Amino acid sequence: MSDVPLAIGIDFGGTSVKIGVLYRSNIIDEAPRIDTQEFEEATPLIERIHQTIEELRSKHPKISAIGVGMPGFVDFPTGLVHRLTNVKGWVNIHLKRQLGGLCALPVTVENDANCMAYAEWKRGAGRGINHLVALTLGTGVGGAIIIDGRMVRGSNYAAGELGQTSIDYRGPAGAYGNRGSLEDYIGNHQIAEMAVKAYAAAGKEIALADCEPSDLAKAATKDDKVAIAVWDEIAEKLASALMNCCWLLNPEAIIIGGGVANAGALLFDPLNKYLRNQLSGPFKDDLQILPARFGNEAGIIGAATLALEEAGYNIDD
Amino acid sequence: MSDVPLAIGIDFGGTSVKIGVLYRSNIIDEAPRIDTQEFEEATPLIERIHQTIEELRSKHPKISAIGVGMPGFVDFPTGLVHRLTNVKGWVNIHLKRQLGGLCALPVTVENDANCMAYAEWKRGAGRGINHLVALTLGTGVGGAIIIDGRMVRGSNYAAGELGQTSIDYRGPAGAYGNRGSLEDYIGNHQIAEMAVKAYAAAGKEIALADCEPSDLAKAATKDDKVAIAVWDEIAEKLASALMNCCWLLNPEAIIIGGGVANAGALLFDPLNKYLRNQLSGPFKDDLQILPARFGNEAGIIGAATLALEEAGYNIDD
Repeated sequence: MSDVPLAIGIDFGGTSVKIGVLYRSNIIDEAPRIDTQEFEEATPLIERIHQTIEELRSKHPKISAIGVGMPGFVDFPTGLVHRLTNVKGWVNIHLKRQLGGLCALPVTVENDANCMAYAEWKRGAGRGINHLVALTLGTGVGGAIIIDGRMVRGSNYAAGELGQTSIDYRGPAGAYGNRGSLEDYIGNHQIAEMAVKAYAAAGKEIALADCEPSDLAKAATKDDKVAIAVWDEIAEKLASALMNCCWLLNPEAIIIGGGVANAGALLFDPLNKYLRNQLSGPFKDDLQILPARFGNEAGIIGAATLALEEAGYNIDD
Repeated sequence: MSDVPLAIGIDFGGTSVKIGVLYRSNIIDEAPRIDTQEFEEATPLIERIHQTIEELRSKHPKISAIGVGMPGFVDFPTGLVHRLTNVKGWVNIHLKRQLGGLCALPVTVENDANCMAYAEWKRGAGRGINHLVALTLGTGVGGAIIIDGRMVRGSNYAAGELGQTSIDYRGPAGAYGNRGSLEDYIGNHQIAEMAVKAYAAAGKEIALADCEPSDLAKAATKDDKVAIAVWDEIAEKLASALMNCCWLLNPEAIIIGGGVANAGALLFDPLNKYLRNQLSGPFKDDLQILPARFGNEAGIIGAATLALEEAGYNIDD
């Protein structure tokens, strides 16, 4: 282990900041979470993050880089965070410059969905794959794209928003006016609403709170026909958005993580069917649809791995 | 002109093969078209193309590379043409190897939509733009994607099929089982059918043959309300597919060519409206929607330009 560089990965969420130390593919230490809601402004929170980092560095002197995954839109080269909707005071924050100045280590700041995809690509289900679409299914639907062995960030570093793509040009208008966006059909809450309606149509009253993806997965494994039909409908809708990615990008693999993906074959079997039935040979013959390897730890692993690579380290060491 | 390399561009279509000589951005010579339907097999047609090339080379000794744009699926690195649906005998044809052997010049073989996009990117409306989506609206809808200054070909060199992406997950099944594909709504023929129906609903009987895009453009400029509404509907559908490209890829520009794009503001004005109304800031603030510079000559220009670059020449010389 002596020559392998360590890195700090920071998973900055709407409610808490998780900070861990990565050695190869493993988080070997993790600091107590920081509650974002205790802070009214960005600078005190950044100083608190710095303090936590220094505590970790005192225990792990080989830490060589810091990566941060942010729940919002980031200017990747400069590390400017444009705006966080869930955390007070985060408007135009130069996080890379501020945190780098405090820690005197290379800092990389990236969108959280890209960090999760980076973890899967470099350390997880996507290792060795050069053309990849990754998505996380949870409250929202996040995505990231790797093409020709490079993360696709786009002209304003905003690319990969699979959850905002449309599956119905005349569907309801979403958060940005975008009609029929995938997230508005298969976000956790929308799935619960879909299930409540499906149960009602089958003459069964059930509470929204009892229609979490995990509830629906349990029901479906017990041969509950309504739950099985709900998973089929989720798969049909998701397949449409993923088919668009396939026709556009011809990826080798699609990696799916997040809570909804824990349903396993209940989701993946109909998804494979709907997707492959809508693609021609070169788009599907070699296509793999894979569950993500990492769960909640993907953010830390991806941010830390990205930071090492950006700082010029060979992560395979 | 003495040091500028010339290249031959070949626009291989379903009915004819066009062969031209490119100097910078101009086709300075063009051979008589070859009728593909005169040939029962690939080899005699390739020999005829070779003969035409030698005639052009005798007039233009500085020809340094040959590029071919094919109306079908091509394995880009090897130049293997998998299959042409409209030309007899073209199944697994090693065009790059065969034509290269005959001509003793570097040969590049690429999909025709990618060649058209290459022309716009290197010589046309997309010069200097590193993140680009290009599409051609005609009988079909062809597309190509440039990201980070590189053509996106995907894992099997099949990427860019914008016309096959879906705008309605429960739309009618298309050629590959794909439901609600853009091409099935706004291909020339589908536009004509849409117009016939719209006129019928307005109490006016009109023949399919009188609903070409050029007819509908003429009518709309004369303030024909039905034709104007048809252009609005084309724009709405096209915007949905392009919005998906924007959310996924965050391009700087979208370049639109082909017969349907000749409608100009009739298409581009509502398209801009529908597209921008469905995107958030970083996706639209710097986004340009541009008409293509080249028309029918894009195939030759793109194929020849690509061939020069692949052969290591600086095309800006």
